[in-house]
Amino acid sequence: VSSLHERLGYGPDERVLIVNCDDLGFCHAANQGVYEALRSGLGTSASLMVPCPWAADAAARYDGDDVGVHLTLTSEWEAYRWAPLTAGRSLVDEQGRLPRTSEAVWAGADLDEVVRECRAQIEQALGWGVDVTHLDAHMGTLQLRPRFFEVYLELGVAYRLPLRLSGAETEPVLGFAFRGPAAARGVTFTDHFIHVEGVGSRSVLLDLVPKLRSGVTEAYLHPAIDSPELRAAAPDWERRVDDYRFLVHDSELREALDAHGVHLTGFRQLRDSMRAT
Amino acid sequence: VSSLHERLGYGPDERVLIVNCDDLGFCHAANQGVYEALRSGLGTSASLMVPCPWAADAAARYDGDDVGVHLTLTSEWEAYRWAPLTAGRSLVDEQGRLPRTSEAVWAGADLDEVVRECRAQIEQALGWGVDVTHLDAHMGTLQLRPRFFEVYLELGVAYRLPLRLSGAETEPVLGFAFRGPAAARGVTFTDHFIHVEGVGSRSVLLDLVPKLRSGVTEAYLHPAIDSPELRAAAPDWERRVDDYRFLVHDSELREALDAHGVHLTGFRQLRDSMRAT
Repeated sequence: VSSLHERLGYGPDERVLIVNCDDLGFCHAANQGVYEALRSGLGTSASLMVPCPWAADAAARYDGDDVGVHLTLTSEWEAYRWAPLTAGRSLVDEQGRLPRTSEAVWAGADLDEVVRECRAQIEQALGWGVDVTHLDAHMGTLQLRPRFFEVYLELGVAYRLPLRLSGAETEPVLGFAFRGPAAARGVTFTDHFIHVEGVGSRSVLLDLVPKLRSGVTEAYLHPAIDSPELRAAAPDWERRVDDYRFLVHDSELREALDAHGVHLTGFRQLRDSMRAT
Repeated sequence: VSSLHERLGYGPDERVLIVNCDDLGFCHAANQGVYEALRSGLGTSASLMVPCPWAADAAARYDGDDVGVHLTLTSEWEAYRWAPLTAGRSLVDEQGRLPRTSEAVWAGADLDEVVRECRAQIEQALGWGVDVTHLDAHMGTLQLRPRFFEVYLELGVAYRLPLRLSGAETEPVLGFAFRGPAAARGVTFTDHFIHVEGVGSRSVLLDLVPKLRSGVTEAYLHPAIDSPELRAAAPDWERRVDDYRFLVHDSELREALDAHGVHLTGFRQLRDSMRAT
């Protein structure tokens, strides 16, 4: 059995990076930032939040880009909210919007309603004409708890899509195995995964590039252009704007990738490889 | 029986104008524009769209302003969408969002679900601490059809709130009486109402001021600041930005009101008068 990156055509020691742009559709500024990162920057993949107010705009601008579905069960900001696609009453807070925390989802969401909502999100993206490349989940709602992971894995199997999974080193921390079960079901996932949440993505990525291990690694950022809308919606707006500048306007990452011979790829290659086996 | 404006303390020949700012909560640019119009411009009242993504921001910025509920059963823009607060399946389109047209609401909405949704919108505004001053309805969904008008009138009665009603001259056009039935139930509404939809509010208002009849007239505008978000969300963004400039930055309207001795008021005065009788 050859490794994932060898199946993608790389040598056994080569290092391959997916630069994923999360939160496409979240707001207008995110749509601007993510598409620029994909089309004129170093982003190689993006994840669409289908229930968000600006998802229809993201879909209207879609042009065959490497876009997966960022399954969304939370609406985390205080000033700016969105609702599920389906009428699952266990999926909403007292304001009829998705709840603000992953903990609220884990405590309250009925799994049948979760499945219906996630399927509706994927079907909506497909219905908009998006050639969905992978699945991941906003704020880890489907990755960090075994009951929810089972839903996630079934969706990957049903739609024959790669899943974002965190690295093997996180399994003891989370207290359950997910990489073996995903492999056993024929679902593709990256060899390594870089958490950059809560810190500057720029410094994490620049620190990471020289240390990349062989195989496929996913890192994710949240590029968005600077705008009054973004500043009011997301208290972490400065980090998002820096991610945008880092991927679109600065040369540091390009230089680091070149200096260390790191290849870039997207999730479409993983998906096509998964479907070919 | 004294007339409305006399009950508000004006002389029988005096002319009183409500300058209502619609679509508070619709988007970030609308919240900026409407609150500026109320606080440093000529807006005297605003109408909050509770299901919209930015309604929570509007509520967080609320500071005792003259704000009513713009009952919202449609999500009309292509790129930017929102969902109802309640799980009424007759209230949403195939994307789980409120439908894009009033016609779709009239054709498909179950009236019991409409009542539940409208009550949830009013209760949400009250729950946010908004001292709701009046009710009106986005895109006329509740005013232009007799079955829906009955719901609207019952809400005005139940919450003891003034209703936006169009002028007596529109009853033959719409084919049913609504002003008499509202008066019979003790609901207050303005003597006159100015439709400005689809044209420049600036020219309509400047043309209107010298011709105002005695009594209370409502005119409505849609002030919003210019931003990439607004331009992408609303194809009529130029009109909204002009409404903002007209109410906040220009002096023409102030000069016209002064020249013709027109008084300004809000819906709070109408509500308090209605509740005192």
